[in-house]
Amino acid sequence: MEQLSELIALVGESHVLAEPALKAQYEEDWRGRYHGVARAVVRPADTAEVAEVVRWCAENEVAIVTQGGNTGLCGGATPDRSGQAIILSTERLNKIRSVDTANDTMVVEAGCVLQVVQEAAQAQDRLFPLSLAAEGSCTIGGNLATNAGGTQVLRYGNARDLVLGLEVVTAKGEIMHGLRGLRKDNTGYDLRNLFIGSEGTLGIITAAALKLFPQPVAQCTAMLALNSVEDAITMLGLARQGFGPALTGFELMARNCLEAVVECYPEQRLPFQGPSAELPWFALLELSDSESEEHARTRFEEVLGEAIEQGVIQDAVIAESGAQSAALWHLRESIPLAERALGTGIKHDISVPVSSYTEFIEQTNAAIQEFMPGVIHVIFGHLGDGNLHYNIMSGQIYSEADLTAKLEQLSNIVHDSVHRFGGSISAEHGIGQLKRDWLPRYKDPVELSLMHAIKQALDPKNILNPGKLLAVSSDSTK
Amino acid sequence: MEQLSELIALVGESHVLAEPALKAQYEEDWRGRYHGVARAVVRPADTAEVAEVVRWCAENEVAIVTQGGNTGLCGGATPDRSGQAIILSTERLNKIRSVDTANDTMVVEAGCVLQVVQEAAQAQDRLFPLSLAAEGSCTIGGNLATNAGGTQVLRYGNARDLVLGLEVVTAKGEIMHGLRGLRKDNTGYDLRNLFIGSEGTLGIITAAALKLFPQPVAQCTAMLALNSVEDAITMLGLARQGFGPALTGFELMARNCLEAVVECYPEQRLPFQGPSAELPWFALLELSDSESEEHARTRFEEVLGEAIEQGVIQDAVIAESGAQSAALWHLRESIPLAERALGTGIKHDISVPVSSYTEFIEQTNAAIQEFMPGVIHVIFGHLGDGNLHYNIMSGQIYSEADLTAKLEQLSNIVHDSVHRFGGSISAEHGIGQLKRDWLPRYKDPVELSLMHAIKQALDPKNILNPGKLLAVSSDSTK
Repeated sequence: MEQLSELIALVGESHVLAEPALKAQYEEDWRGRYHGVARAVVRPADTAEVAEVVRWCAENEVAIVTQGGNTGLCGGATPDRSGQAIILSTERLNKIRSVDTANDTMVVEAGCVLQVVQEAAQAQDRLFPLSLAAEGSCTIGGNLATNAGGTQVLRYGNARDLVLGLEVVTAKGEIMHGLRGLRKDNTGYDLRNLFIGSEGTLGIITAAALKLFPQPVAQCTAMLALNSVEDAITMLGLARQGFGPALTGFELMARNCLEAVVECYPEQRLPFQGPSAELPWFALLELSDSESEEHARTRFEEVLGEAIEQGVIQDAVIAESGAQSAALWHLRESIPLAERALGTGIKHDISVPVSSYTEFIEQTNAAIQEFMPGVIHVIFGHLGDGNLHYNIMSGQIYSEADLTAKLEQLSNIVHDSVHRFGGSISAEHGIGQLKRDWLPRYKDPVELSLMHAIKQALDPKNILNPGKLLAVSSDSTK
Repeated sequence: MEQLSELIALVGESHVLAEPALKAQYEEDWRGRYHGVARAVVRPADTAEVAEVVRWCAENEVAIVTQGGNTGLCGGATPDRSGQAIILSTERLNKIRSVDTANDTMVVEAGCVLQVVQEAAQAQDRLFPLSLAAEGSCTIGGNLATNAGGTQVLRYGNARDLVLGLEVVTAKGEIMHGLRGLRKDNTGYDLRNLFIGSEGTLGIITAAALKLFPQPVAQCTAMLALNSVEDAITMLGLARQGFGPALTGFELMARNCLEAVVECYPEQRLPFQGPSAELPWFALLELSDSESEEHARTRFEEVLGEAIEQGVIQDAVIAESGAQSAALWHLRESIPLAERALGTGIKHDISVPVSSYTEFIEQTNAAIQEFMPGVIHVIFGHLGDGNLHYNIMSGQIYSEADLTAKLEQLSNIVHDSVHRFGGSISAEHGIGQLKRDWLPRYKDPVELSLMHAIKQALDPKNILNPGKLLAVSSDSTK
């Protein structure tokens, strides 16, 4: 294959993987849901090599699927089955280029594993707050390409909010040098945010200048028992007012989620007993304090005491120690594993305005029950930033096949309802291939046509992750 | 004029101003530095009328200069002298469409004056934190078109960080409905941030969904006396660590700035006496507390006491009351007026990484003194977000004419130095016409060519604020 020899000349023989056995782990996503075939996996050593590979691909009209840790949930980093595309792995772009504590910034390469980035910040007594389940294997490049969310969004924002500048290889194979560590820079269009969240379809992010924050001195959590989602929303308002930016977590969980956890993991226990344990909703709050754990606990006592008096919450447990805080978080984090006990399921990563959640849940639950009576609703997530997981489980009544047969209709009911309330059908996971064909149903047509115009302008040959996020236009099919 | 009658048919006779006396105030910026001639000033009543006007302009290839409060500093809202463009004034798009306290969002039209937006938030016990000198007359549409900065950036970010969604009229006259009030939404390219900061060259922002915050319970300020910029940077690090997100202001001022203030305004007084008053640098710190003024003062005492012990700061005054806090801020805010006492001046709105400020100031001051010995450096600004005003005043030695004659060379010395340190030649004011032709000298050429590609894709007829921000390409001159 002459073409491969040209790629080998660019990055070296050991970094062009063409053997099926070597390519296999890159051609399938980590959950085994998406399967593709790549011409080869190419692993450039640095930004200059990325640019050379892209120039070669542009000349030869070869599609490029950029892949970081391969931990995505929407198939955005898996090639199609044509065997024509290359997978460009960023795994060798793994340097922490610099940490500047006076400026509170760090420059890292796209292939750095998120946890390595967090640890490099921590080593300098700083916090890089992006945090999510896959942090041990996902890469910062993938986090930025998909604008990852995670558990700290309420306080620190999404991935895009943590970035000051980018280095990007364009579809022409040029290098955009935009690694500025500036918090204020009004010199033209915001290209940084255009590349962030574009899922590898507009350019290849090779490095980023990230914001750093002080480490909180102490953290403290509390678990609340509530009568309704409406009360949870009122409590969120009181917490924002009472704690200001010290409020770093506000998670909502329906009772059946916690019941599933204690059933699956008998070593875990609900912090409530008696009538409080029977209430339908629970919330987990976290404070990050710049004084002390004691100060955080005192703040909790004041604000939660007032909320109990007002009848907004029915009961509250404030963690007495770091270990107790961890146990409360562990309950929340065990839900995704424990919900399997409720049968097979369909998951939805949605957001609607917080003020609409009561109505949204009532109406959507009712529509789902009318369509498929007896399925179980599993509802939990980051109420503080408006992002809930709205899952539907088969329970004991239906088989996996029953549910799978109605998957599309069930998802349409949920997403149509999300759309009616002005929400998003992908709050944090992105579009990839999973949701690509749903997008035209829900996205404003003018936004969609602007997206196509930008794609056409920045990648006219459609070589960057074609068919992801946007459907391929008929005139640019590869 | 047949054409005007067509516009009149769209928006009504009283909203197409063609008489020179009526147009005049729109054709000149508020400082009287930029002068243009417009065919007419058109004042649409709502988004639908904006779209109709843009469609008419697109058909007739008429350029559109969108104008809000006309308070810009770079001539971005002033037409050229050809008399061909229309000015589209957003002044009638002035409705607060909704305030949602449970979701902490509000939807406002582009022509709302910033102070009206702040007050609408305050009426619901919420904070909209964007704040700047022109807030009584600038509009939120202009703030977003230029990504305004202001005094709260350290804590709340720039204007773009306060926006969740936009309604925009495109260059084709289509309406993009993107007024989502969601903190998480990963369904495609970030068009919102592309329009924000594009200075009316990519689309016309007609409304925005804004983020609201809790009102701080108390605020407290302190003034510090320092030996050096380096110490100020160390102090900034200690303040970030000690106060976390409660730190909402960190302003740096050279001694000559404060001396000019007390000379001009004898009723104002420096809070220091004796040797502290003779130190070369001063810093103003502000804490926003969610507990009480007393708590804020106690926090100040702890952290500043430690800093004095470490020798990082030489002296500190903590305000004992709201009135004292206001007096300290008043000193800082009087600098731009008082610096006139130091002669005529050239201003620069710059940012460099905070860690480079010591070296930047030393090297730039030396280069300026070598070029024009005896001019006075006036240096002050938002050190907390890396944005300083680096001004050069004639002092007693030079006349206004002397300085004006060397204006371009002086600015080149400053901006070349900014560029060498990886900084920005426009931290918060934008490009407009003032800095347009400097941009190619400092902007990464790949970024610049991507900006041109996006402009071409979204406004192929180049009717949206042509000649601002980007130089008109030869093939698209109107």
